[in-house]
Amino acid sequence: MYRYSGMLPFKPPRSLGEGGTPLISVRDSGIEVLFKLEYLNPSGSFKDRGTSLAVGYAYMAGYRRVVEDTSGNTGISVALYSRLYGLKTRIYMPRKAPEGKKRIIKLLGADIVEAPDRGTASKMIVKDLEESYYVAHTWSPFYIIGPATISYEVYEENGVPDVVIIPVGSGGLFLGIMRGFEVLKELGLTNKVPKPIIVEGYSICPVYRKIFGDCKPREPSTLADGIMVPQPPRLGDIIDMITRYNGEIVLVGNSDIKTALRDLIDYGFLVEPTSAATWSGFRKIKDRLRGRTVLLPLTGSGLKTADELYKIISGDPAGRGPT
Amino acid sequence: MYRYSGMLPFKPPRSLGEGGTPLISVRDSGIEVLFKLEYLNPSGSFKDRGTSLAVGYAYMAGYRRVVEDTSGNTGISVALYSRLYGLKTRIYMPRKAPEGKKRIIKLLGADIVEAPDRGTASKMIVKDLEESYYVAHTWSPFYIIGPATISYEVYEENGVPDVVIIPVGSGGLFLGIMRGFEVLKELGLTNKVPKPIIVEGYSICPVYRKIFGDCKPREPSTLADGIMVPQPPRLGDIIDMITRYNGEIVLVGNSDIKTALRDLIDYGFLVEPTSAATWSGFRKIKDRLRGRTVLLPLTGSGLKTADELYKIISGDPAGRGPT
Repeated sequence: MYRYSGMLPFKPPRSLGEGGTPLISVRDSGIEVLFKLEYLNPSGSFKDRGTSLAVGYAYMAGYRRVVEDTSGNTGISVALYSRLYGLKTRIYMPRKAPEGKKRIIKLLGADIVEAPDRGTASKMIVKDLEESYYVAHTWSPFYIIGPATISYEVYEENGVPDVVIIPVGSGGLFLGIMRGFEVLKELGLTNKVPKPIIVEGYSICPVYRKIFGDCKPREPSTLADGIMVPQPPRLGDIIDMITRYNGEIVLVGNSDIKTALRDLIDYGFLVEPTSAATWSGFRKIKDRLRGRTVLLPLTGSGLKTADELYKIISGDPAGRGPT
Repeated sequence: MYRYSGMLPFKPPRSLGEGGTPLISVRDSGIEVLFKLEYLNPSGSFKDRGTSLAVGYAYMAGYRRVVEDTSGNTGISVALYSRLYGLKTRIYMPRKAPEGKKRIIKLLGADIVEAPDRGTASKMIVKDLEESYYVAHTWSPFYIIGPATISYEVYEENGVPDVVIIPVGSGGLFLGIMRGFEVLKELGLTNKVPKPIIVEGYSICPVYRKIFGDCKPREPSTLADGIMVPQPPRLGDIIDMITRYNGEIVLVGNSDIKTALRDLIDYGFLVEPTSAATWSGFRKIKDRLRGRTVLLPLTGSGLKTADELYKIISGDPAGRGPT
C-alpha cells in the first residue's frame, strides 16, 4: 500500500508488505464480481492497512505499550505489528470471540483480557490507558485512511466499479473504500463514485435501525463476529455516506452465511464467516445488478478458525451455532 | 505469477492471485536479508505456484479426480485448486501430520487417507491412480516451473541476490528458484546465479547423507514437517545444482527451530516451523555472509497450525515435541 505513500499522512519505518492484494474477477449471473482478497494481508485481514499506520505512529511517537479492544481480527493485526516494533500489547475482547483468533493473539505474545461482550470490552479499556497508545480502530482515522488504499489499487488495476458491497461493523472499511473513490474523483482521475451496498447481520444492525427504526431479526447472525458492533462511533458518517451515494442496506442471517461460505470455498476463497456475510448480501440483491461491475472485498482469512469453519459447514451441533 | 505467463508453458483458465508475494528487506549483522513472504499465497504456502499449473492442467486435460500424497501444505494447496475447478480430491498423508493442516483439507472438501508415514503414503497412492490425475509434486515439472517465478519477481524488484537459503524436502522449491535465476542468465538479463545454501533437518537429511555419507543427528528435527522427505526423487538433480554453484548444506534440529520461530515472530512473520528451519540455517552461517544480499523464502503460514505453534513456543509438553 506504500506505493501510495504520497497520498498517506506518513510512511511508517517498517512494513510487512500490507496491501497489494489480488483482485480476482468472477462472472456470476451476468455480473462481473471483483473479489479483493484482503484476507491475504500479513495478519490475514484488511485491518493491517490501518494497523500498519496506527502502530507505526505509536512507535514513532515513543509509546512502549499498545492496548486495543476488538472482536478478533484487529487484535491479531495489532498484536503482530506491535511485535514488529517490540511494543507490549494488551487486547480486550469478548469471551465468545472465536478460540482460533485468541490462540493467534497469544502466539504473538500479547496479553488477552476477556470481557462479557464487545461493548464491555470497550468500557474496560478506558481504565488501562495510562502511558499506552489506544489503537481504537472503531474511530481512529488510520482505519479509514488505510483501507482507502484498497480503492486506489482497484482503480489502477481495473478502473472504478459501478457498485461496492461492504460489510459494516465499525464502518472503517466502508468509509475508507468510499473515501478512497471520492479522493480519486477530487483528483480528477474519474467522475464516478460507486453506489454502496452495505451488509449487516439481523442480530446487530445499528445502521439499518437508525434509518428504518427497527430490523426485525428473522434469525440470528452471530456467525459473522466481525460485524457485531452494536454502537459504531461513526454511525452518523456511515449514514451520511450511504445517503450521499444513494446506497442500500442488506441484512443477513446465519443460514445465509453458511450457504455463502460453501459458495466462496467453491470459488477457492477460504475466508471467515464475516466475508461470507458480504457474499450473502450480494446473493440477495444480484437480480438488480445485472450488467454491472461489483467490487466485493473478502475481509478475513479462514485459516485462523479452520476448525470452527468446518463445524459450521458440516453442520456439527458442537460448532458455534446460533445463540 | 501470470505476469510471467510468456515464460510459462501455459496459463491456466482460473487464478486465485498466486505469486506476487511481498519481498521484505531486513538488516541483520551487516547482511541484507530479503524475505520472500510465500506464506501469503492463496492457500498459505509457495506450493500454490506449482499447484495452480498442475491442477489447471488436470482440468484442461479433462480429469475429474485428483490424488496426491503430501505432508500437509501441498495437500491444502491441491484441495483448494481442485475445489476451484470442481474436481474430486483424495489426499494421502502421514498420520502424524499436523492436525491443523488435516482440518483445513477436510474443510476444503477433500478426502484424507492416513498412512503410517510419508513413504508409505507415496506407496499407497499407486493403487489409486485409475482415471485420476496424480499431482505428484515431488517429481512433477510444475513444481519447478511454478517456483521459478519467485526468482523472476525478486529479480524485477531487487535484482539478483548473492546467496539464496532454501529448505529442501522434495527439492522443488530449491530447483525452481535456482532454475529461475539460470533462465534470467540465459536470457542475458544478468550474469550472476546466486550461491545456494540448502537447509535439511538432522532427522531426515538425504542430500547431506548422499554427499557426506552420514549426518550424525545431534537432536531430532521433527518439527519441520515440510522437509521430512526421506527419498526425494530428484536427489541427483539437487546434488548437481549444489555442485554447479558451489553450494552448501546446513543441518538444523528442533531446538534451533524453536529459537528461530521466536525470532521470525519478532520480525512480524507468523510462519510454520519449516520456515523457521530455514532461518536457523541462516543463523548458523551468518558470520560468513557479511556484506552479502541473501534471499530467504518463508514457505508456509503459521495461521494453519497456530495452536501447535503456541505449544512449541511456550514449551508446553503436550505440544508436538521431538519424537
